[in-house]
Amino acid sequence: MRQVDFQSDDPDLLVGTDFLDDAGVYRLDDERALVQSVDFFTPVVDDPADFGAVAAANALSDIYAMGAKPLVALNLVAFPEADLPLDVLVDILRGSGEILAEAGVALMGGHSIDDREPKFGLAVTGMVHPDRIVTIGGAGPGDVLVLTKPIGVGVVTTAIKRDLAGPEIERAAVALMRELNAKAAEAMVETGVNAATDVTGFGLLGHAAEMADASGVSLQLWADEVPLLPGSRELAERGVFPGGSSSNLDYLCGKGAVTFEESIPEYMRLLLADAVTSGGLLISVPEDRSTSLLNGLHSRGTGGFPVGRVDIRRDRRAIEVIRGH
Amino acid sequence: MRQVDFQSDDPDLLVGTDFLDDAGVYRLDDERALVQSVDFFTPVVDDPADFGAVAAANALSDIYAMGAKPLVALNLVAFPEADLPLDVLVDILRGSGEILAEAGVALMGGHSIDDREPKFGLAVTGMVHPDRIVTIGGAGPGDVLVLTKPIGVGVVTTAIKRDLAGPEIERAAVALMRELNAKAAEAMVETGVNAATDVTGFGLLGHAAEMADASGVSLQLWADEVPLLPGSRELAERGVFPGGSSSNLDYLCGKGAVTFEESIPEYMRLLLADAVTSGGLLISVPEDRSTSLLNGLHSRGTGGFPVGRVDIRRDRRAIEVIRGH
Repeated sequence: MRQVDFQSDDPDLLVGTDFLDDAGVYRLDDERALVQSVDFFTPVVDDPADFGAVAAANALSDIYAMGAKPLVALNLVAFPEADLPLDVLVDILRGSGEILAEAGVALMGGHSIDDREPKFGLAVTGMVHPDRIVTIGGAGPGDVLVLTKPIGVGVVTTAIKRDLAGPEIERAAVALMRELNAKAAEAMVETGVNAATDVTGFGLLGHAAEMADASGVSLQLWADEVPLLPGSRELAERGVFPGGSSSNLDYLCGKGAVTFEESIPEYMRLLLADAVTSGGLLISVPEDRSTSLLNGLHSRGTGGFPVGRVDIRRDRRAIEVIRGH
Repeated sequence: MRQVDFQSDDPDLLVGTDFLDDAGVYRLDDERALVQSVDFFTPVVDDPADFGAVAAANALSDIYAMGAKPLVALNLVAFPEADLPLDVLVDILRGSGEILAEAGVALMGGHSIDDREPKFGLAVTGMVHPDRIVTIGGAGPGDVLVLTKPIGVGVVTTAIKRDLAGPEIERAAVALMRELNAKAAEAMVETGVNAATDVTGFGLLGHAAEMADASGVSLQLWADEVPLLPGSRELAERGVFPGGSSSNLDYLCGKGAVTFEESIPEYMRLLLADAVTSGGLLISVPEDRSTSLLNGLHSRGTGGFPVGRVDIRRDRRAIEVIRGH
C-alpha cells in the first residue's frame, strides 16, 4: 500500500502515511495531538464475542504503541445478513464493547455493510502530548529490546482451525489476544523509552525489521529469550503454520534483512516470523532505564521480556537472530 | 444496527450511537469537540478516480452536516489484488486524495484487506465548538426546510449501469456527488439553523423522516419544489429505479410515516425515496432566517432550495408530501 499513499505537507500532521508508524498523529495545539488508527479483518477465532474482543484490543493497540491514550472509536462492520443470524453480530459487538469499556473508550458510531464474509474492526482515536509521542523510529544503539506478550498466535489459531489444539491452548491464546496493551503503554510512557511498535501481521521479525529501518539501526534478537504461547513450540515443530509465516520469513530473508545463527531450527525461524493478532509491544529502551521499564511492566501485572539489543547499522541487515546472549 | 449498538454513559460523549445523527461528537474541553464518522461502500460509478472522489465527499458530508470542520481521515480499503490491477486502487486513492485536498483534510493512514469485491471509504474526524453543534433533532414548527443538492442519484447511477443514460447525464450526476457540502455547512453555521442532516441511502424522505422523529415534529414536503438531477425525472417515469428506492418507500409507508397528496404519481414518490450517494444537506432553518441562509448558500455558489416546512407533530405521520405550497 505504501506506493499508493498520499503525503500531506500540513505541518500539524506529525506522523502521516509516509512513516512506518502504527498510527497517524495530528497536532491540535502545543499540548495535544490526535492519534488515529484503523484495523479490521475476518474472524480469527470461532467465538463471535472473542472475535469482537480481539478485534477491539488489536485496534486499540496501535494507539497504545505510540504512547497515547485511546478516547473514542467507530465500529466497522461487514456482515452477511442473509447467511448468519444477527445474534452473531450482536455477540461480536458485545465482545468489542467489553474491551472498549475496559479501555475507557466511548463508541461514537460506525458503519455496516452487507458482505459475503463477516469482517469487523474499529477506527480508534486517541490523544497524546505532542512532545511525548513514542514512534517506531527512535531506537538507538545500546538500547535493550523488551517484548510485552508471547508470540505464536498464528500457529495456535491455525491449530484451532485444524482441530489440533486442545481447549487450554485455545484459552491461553484468546486471553492473550484479548489483553489490552494499556498497562504496557503506561509503563513505557512512565519510564521514557526511545521507540515502540506493536507486533501484529508481519510477525516479531517483520515489525522488528520495520523498527530497525525506521531507526537506522540493526537489531540483535535472542531466539531463546522470546516468550512463546503455551503449545506453540510443539505445534511449530510439527509444522502447523499459517501461510503468512513463510511468506513473512521469505520476504525478510529474500531482501537480506534477517540472518540467523546456524543452529536455530527452521521451525523457530518461522515462529519468529509468525503473524500475530493483537500482539504485545516491542519497546526499545535505553539500557540504564531497562530495569525501570521491566519493573513498571511487572508491577502492573504485564509481561516484560528482554529479547534483544540495538546495534549500529552496518549494512542492509536489519536483524541478526542469535540463540541467546 | 440500532438494536445492537452499545450506549455509553461518558458525559463527554455529546452525540453517540443512541442518536439518529450522522456523526458522533465527543467533548474535549469547553471550546472543542471531536466529530467522527465512517462510511464505505462498493463502487457506485465506473471510473475509479470518480469512485474515490465520491466516497470521500460522501464520508466528509457527515461531518459537514453537524456544522463541523473535517480535519483528518483514514482510508478503508478492500481490494481483490489477484483480480484487479493495482492501478485501479491507485486511481481510487488519487480521486479521494483530490477531494481531501480540496477539503483541507490530512490523510493519517488507513487499512487495506484483500477482498473479493472492492470497497472504499473513509473514517473522518472533524472539530466543532460544543455549543455550535448542529444536530438532526432541533427542527421546530414554523421552520423552513432547505435542500442544498438535487436528488435522483440512485435513478441515474442505475441508468448508467444499464446503459440507459447518456454521457451528459452521467457527468452531471458525478459532478454532484463529488461536490463537497463544505460551503453549505459554512452558510448554515453562519446563519444559525435549528437542525440538519445529509441526504444519503435512505433517500430524501427517509432522512427527512429521521429528522422529524428526532425533533418530535412533522414535516411538510413540497414535491414540485424538490430539485432533480438532469434526466432523473424521465428515467424515473420509465421505471428505472434501484431496488433500494421501493424498499425505502415501502418501509416509510408501511409504518405510516409518510402520506402523499393523491395526484402525486408513483414514480415521483419513488424518486423522493430514491437512495442518494453524497447528497446535499437538508436544513431546518427558522423562517425569519431562511432568506439569510438562501443568500449565504447562493453567494457561495451552492444550491439552496426551499422544499418544505416544519409543523407540530400530531400523530405517527412524520411527513406529509404535497405538490406545492
